[in-house]
Amino acid sequence: MTQNRIHNFNAGPAALPLEVLEEIQASFLDYKGCGMSITEISHRSKWFDDIINDAVARTRRLLGLDDRYQVLFLQGGASMQFAMIPMNFLAHGQSADYINTGTWSAKAIKEAQIQNKTIRVAASSEDRNFAYIPKAIDLDADAAYVHITSNNTIKGTQWAAFPDTGKVPIISDMSSDIMSRPLDMDRFAMIYAGAQKNIGPAGVCMAIVRQDLLDRVPDTIPTMLRYTTFSGKNSMYNTPPCFGVYTIQLVLKWIEETIGGLEKMAAANREKGDRLYGFIDNSGFYQGTADADSRSLMNVTFRLPSEDLEKKFVADALALGLGGLKGHRSVGGCRASIYNATRIDAVQALVDFMKNFMDKNG
Amino acid sequence: MTQNRIHNFNAGPAALPLEVLEEIQASFLDYKGCGMSITEISHRSKWFDDIINDAVARTRRLLGLDDRYQVLFLQGGASMQFAMIPMNFLAHGQSADYINTGTWSAKAIKEAQIQNKTIRVAASSEDRNFAYIPKAIDLDADAAYVHITSNNTIKGTQWAAFPDTGKVPIISDMSSDIMSRPLDMDRFAMIYAGAQKNIGPAGVCMAIVRQDLLDRVPDTIPTMLRYTTFSGKNSMYNTPPCFGVYTIQLVLKWIEETIGGLEKMAAANREKGDRLYGFIDNSGFYQGTADADSRSLMNVTFRLPSEDLEKKFVADALALGLGGLKGHRSVGGCRASIYNATRIDAVQALVDFMKNFMDKNG
Repeated sequence: MTQNRIHNFNAGPAALPLEVLEEIQASFLDYKGCGMSITEISHRSKWFDDIINDAVARTRRLLGLDDRYQVLFLQGGASMQFAMIPMNFLAHGQSADYINTGTWSAKAIKEAQIQNKTIRVAASSEDRNFAYIPKAIDLDADAAYVHITSNNTIKGTQWAAFPDTGKVPIISDMSSDIMSRPLDMDRFAMIYAGAQKNIGPAGVCMAIVRQDLLDRVPDTIPTMLRYTTFSGKNSMYNTPPCFGVYTIQLVLKWIEETIGGLEKMAAANREKGDRLYGFIDNSGFYQGTADADSRSLMNVTFRLPSEDLEKKFVADALALGLGGLKGHRSVGGCRASIYNATRIDAVQALVDFMKNFMDKNG
Repeated sequence: MTQNRIHNFNAGPAALPLEVLEEIQASFLDYKGCGMSITEISHRSKWFDDIINDAVARTRRLLGLDDRYQVLFLQGGASMQFAMIPMNFLAHGQSADYINTGTWSAKAIKEAQIQNKTIRVAASSEDRNFAYIPKAIDLDADAAYVHITSNNTIKGTQWAAFPDTGKVPIISDMSSDIMSRPLDMDRFAMIYAGAQKNIGPAGVCMAIVRQDLLDRVPDTIPTMLRYTTFSGKNSMYNTPPCFGVYTIQLVLKWIEETIGGLEKMAAANREKGDRLYGFIDNSGFYQGTADADSRSLMNVTFRLPSEDLEKKFVADALALGLGGLKGHRSVGGCRASIYNATRIDAVQALVDFMKNFMDKNG
């Protein structure tokens, strides 16, 4: 079979570690000698039990989770979480704080409002088109929770450090930077992530939820929308997205065993970001769109001197095997997503191309 | 790579056509020469557009759908549909009829009740442990819809013909028999199916919904729980479960191009069912659990003279490469699931084993 692989800078679904893809491929017709594909085994089998339990155990180790946290595998992506979080954790009569750092934060806010829940926008960077992470935050000390988006895929910003919220629990959408760096989980009551950027394929969402939040879940909401339905059954109330959970397990194994853990993952991501931002800053041709102190190490957003040049840039890059460099359709420009699975040699190839392109077109 | 494949009689996730698995495997590192895995391509790319559009087109051809029907790919399995159906299509002040033919029907009923919706049980076969499909149905001519379960995976029953409900739209859970036979879609306002039995892997649910139902959807429910969110965006409001949609596309292609359509699929399924039921009926040892006129061609449920023999039967079968024959944990006994992808030679191997087992242990 062909090995014609490109450098993939897609924002999500995104690059996965080649070792993981090769392992899936090699055992695809016969998983661990059971005579069935991973897509054909029962979720009630010992094979799948081993997979999901290993994925949970690796998550616990990587993030240093204590017994208060449950690791759940859900469906519907982060978008479903936007609805489930206020439904489960924000009672009528209470108020929650949301920090608006762009498209995905705004969608989370909207889903709380659709349910007529009371929320406040405690901070926003909308005044400068979300080019930065807000510093001044007007927190309500009685808020049921504070919701933040740790990395903003579209705007190219990321929280470098998390705000001090006192006793108010933080809930964070980490769809685009989960497992990219160590976390002090004591700061979070819940984190969640659609898998398709840093940890797996589309169609599975990881949620890590602390018991004090689970204690709030009312039993009046539909079964599949209650976190306790999943926490009580190891994510197997009904058939889980087995292939997605399996891929996550292999990616977490790769982070632990091949990369060597989240400190080393973070160092690799830092090196990639420094290489690319360093080049952009010194180019005099490319222009980063996010404030320097708010830059994302996952999604590097930048502009060229004209939209015509941006179009040519994206097309020329693709012709040379550098894919996915077009900015999100809502903002335009260019974007290189350099998640965990993107290797430094891919970033170097991009920098080399960018230098050539600048020399020819600058 | 090894080709140690067993005969897989799992109830779901279940056997998939070997040709489909081989195609996925062969192109897993480089989908159609794009240099990325199917798990790495953007859902906004032309590659994925072609996949989802082809899956929709094949569904339309196979079921003879006219323009009133939308083909949707959702997440959360049939269990999420149990909640979404009354949420979207049953206004307060209206009533819906449900026919209770076992575990899954009962769960659908429960999810309507959790939402305080008004429903009636128009028929039930609970009096004889759901061993039959009810004939006498007490329909409400003003019902918002009638909900049925076309095939009952756990009890081994299936609707051979569908009830005449006049102007009341039928909504059917077809998780375990979709695409197993031709359908007169004029009878249905909606059918839906978790993919993991007849058409794909776990983690994607197909829903086919008629416009008159979509016109009922209120805009006060969360975005991800509204059918119109998906019907308006070709199932891509947010990232869909791409790998699942891709597998469904390949399975539908297999049904159309390798099998030759749903008439031939139905004939193959009839032949397998006749072979297995014929043997059971004449054995004097095995005992089918469903009434003859209500038997499922997808899930063949049967008992042996004792539970000890049933245990030995399941274990001996597995040792010979016949897997997944244990009945559902809620009912015990044995069950052979013989969905579309199970070939007649697998059924013959099972019959041969059953004959041997009977001769040795009868």
